Amino acid sequence: MRAKILELLRHRPDEFVSGEEISGGLGVSRTAVWKHIQELKQAGYGIEAHSRRGYRLNETPDKLLPQEIRSRLTTQIIGREIRYFDNVASTNNEAKLLAANDCPEGTLVVAEAQNSGRGRLSRGWFSPWGKGIWMSVVLRPKFSPQEAPKCTLMAAVAINKAIRQVSGIDCGIKWPNDILYQGRKLVGILTEMSAEMDAINYVVLGMGINVNIAEGEFPDDIAEIATSVALASGKPVDRLELLSAILQQLEDIYQIATSEGFKAVLDEWRAQSITLGQAVDVVGFNRRFSGIAVNIDDDGALLVKMGDSIERVLAGDVSIRPSAKK
Amino acid sequence: MRAKILELLRHRPDEFVSGEEISGGLGVSRTAVWKHIQELKQAGYGIEAHSRRGYRLNETPDKLLPQEIRSRLTTQIIGREIRYFDNVASTNNEAKLLAANDCPEGTLVVAEAQNSGRGRLSRGWFSPWGKGIWMSVVLRPKFSPQEAPKCTLMAAVAINKAIRQVSGIDCGIKWPNDILYQGRKLVGILTEMSAEMDAINYVVLGMGINVNIAEGEFPDDIAEIATSVALASGKPVDRLELLSAILQQLEDIYQIATSEGFKAVLDEWRAQSITLGQAVDVVGFNRRFSGIAVNIDDDGALLVKMGDSIERVLAGDVSIRPSAKK
Repeated sequence: MRAKILELLRHRPDEFVSGEEISGGLGVSRTAVWKHIQELKQAGYGIEAHSRRGYRLNETPDKLLPQEIRSRLTTQIIGREIRYFDNVASTNNEAKLLAANDCPEGTLVVAEAQNSGRGRLSRGWFSPWGKGIWMSVVLRPKFSPQEAPKCTLMAAVAINKAIRQVSGIDCGIKWPNDILYQGRKLVGILTEMSAEMDAINYVVLGMGINVNIAEGEFPDDIAEIATSVALASGKPVDRLELLSAILQQLEDIYQIATSEGFKAVLDEWRAQSITLGQAVDVVGFNRRFSGIAVNIDDDGALLVKMGDSIERVLAGDVSIRPSAKK
Repeated sequence: MRAKILELLRHRPDEFVSGEEISGGLGVSRTAVWKHIQELKQAGYGIEAHSRRGYRLNETPDKLLPQEIRSRLTTQIIGREIRYFDNVASTNNEAKLLAANDCPEGTLVVAEAQNSGRGRLSRGWFSPWGKGIWMSVVLRPKFSPQEAPKCTLMAAVAINKAIRQVSGIDCGIKWPNDILYQGRKLVGILTEMSAEMDAINYVVLGMGINVNIAEGEFPDDIAEIATSVALASGKPVDRLELLSAILQQLEDIYQIATSEGFKAVLDEWRAQSITLGQAVDVVGFNRRFSGIAVNIDDDGALLVKMGDSIERVLAGDVSIRPSAKK
C-alpha cells in the first residue's frame, strides 16, 4: 500500500493530491492514508502535507529502497526479489544464505553499507554508508563449475555499459574482476559459487561500485588506487538510476549468454578490456613470468603469450599488472 | 562422563566393575554413575547390573555413535568433530551448513538413515536405517576450484582400501565417483564445494557406503545394479570398524596429497580403477562419442582416446559405461 501511495504521488510530481482522492482511489480509509504518509516521511521521503490541498512528494531519499528499485526495473529475473539492508556484514554472505534456502534466481541483496565487505581472497572492500552500490545477485546458470568465471565476465560487461550509459564516462575492464577509470579501481566483482563437480547449485555475484565517494573519503591504503563514478564524471550520480541500469544490462547479457551462447559476451568483454594487448606480469603460486595478454578463452581464462608458447592463466594463479593504464 | 564410564567398562570386557570403583575413579557420586548407566542402556548398550558386583558391558549397539567412533579413531583432523543424527534429510546438507558457519576442517556428519539422501545431479541415494555408512566430511583444501574433483579421487581410494582391509573383498573404482563390486554399485561419492573463482571456501565430501543391506532390501529400480559389502563378502560387517578405517585412510591420503603432492594419489587411483583401459561411451550435453579411457589427468579429468585424438572429459559431460565389469 505504501508503494502504491508513493506511485500515485510520484506520477503527479508538482501537484498536491488530496487525501480523499488517495483514499478513494486505493480503497483505504483516510486515517490509513495518513499513517502510511507518516511512515514514508520516517523512511526519508520529503512529503509536504497541506490540510486542504493534500499531499505532495517533494523529495525521494537517497537510499536504495526496494520500492524505489522496483519502480525503475523492467527486468524479468534479476531483482524480482529484493532484500534490503541499511547495514550488513556482507551482501554476498546474505545472498549465499538465501540461495542455500532455495531463493528464486535473480534475488538481489542490497545494502547502504557493509561492515565486512569482502573482495577476492578474503581482502576487505570499503563500503561506506550511502556512497556506493553494494549488492549481490543470485544466479543459477546451467554452466559447469569450470565455467563459473563467465559470471564475472558478464557482470563486468554489464556494469561497464551501465556506468557509461548513466554517467558518460569510459572505463575499462581489468581481468578478471575489476573496472578501472584512468588506472584507478571503480568497481570490484566477487563471484562465489556452490557446486557439485557436475553442476552449479548457485552463483552469487557480488558487486561493489564506488558511486558518490568523494576525494579524501577513501582510507589511506586505497586512496591512490581507488576512485568513484562521481569523481570520474565530475558530478554526483543517482544511485538508483545506476543500480537499475546495471540490473537491466545484467539481465540482457545473461539472456544472451544462455540463449545465443557466450561468444557475444566474450566479444563485448574483449572490446572493453584494458588487459588484452598489454604486457603483464603473472605472479602465481608456483610460477612467475611476464608476457603479453593476447586473449581470453571460452571459459574466461586469460591467455598470455610468452615467447612462442601461450600460457592459460586462471584467476587463482595470478595478479596481473597492466603496464599501461586506461 | 558417559564416554569415560563406557571406556572403563570397555577395557574390562569380561568383568563386573563396582559402582564404588567407577565413582571413585572418575570422581562422581554413585547416584550419578547409576544415572549415566541408565542413559547408556537407553542408547542401546547392553549393560548388566548386579547389586553387589557392579556393572558389566555385554553389548555395544550397532550404531555409529560419536563416542564409539572416537574410541576407534587415531586421526588428527578427520572426525575430530562429530555430528550424529539418527535420521537426517542429507548429511551433505548438514555438513554444508556447518561449513558455512566455520566448523573445523575434518568435521564429520554421520547418520543412521537419510530420508533425502542425494547422489550426483539431484538423483536420490537409498539410505536405510542402520544398514550403511551415510556420512559427510568437511575439508578445506588449498586447491583451486578446478582441482576440487581431486577430493572425489581421494575419497574413492580411501574407501576402496578400507573396504579391502576390513572385509577382504576386492572392488574397483568407476570414474568419477563410484565403487563397484562385480559391476554392482557399493559406494557413491558426492563432492560439493563452496568457492570463489580463486580459492575453495570448503569441500563437503559425501560418502554413501552400502554395508549391511541384504538381498531383497534394495528398491526395485536399483536391485539389479546395487550391492553391499556384506553381500559381497558373505558376512555382516562391523560398521564402526569400517567407518574408522575409512576416516583413517582418508586422513592418510589427504596428508600425502597436501604434503607430497597429488601424484601418489593418482597412482593409487589408477591401480584401483576399472574404467581405465575400457571402451567407454561418452554421453555429454553437447557431444556423444565412444573411445578408450586411457588415463586421468592431474585434475581428475578422464582422458578418452578417440581415433588419433585424446578428449578431456569432465564429470559433468558424461556417463561412462565400461563394457567389461570387475
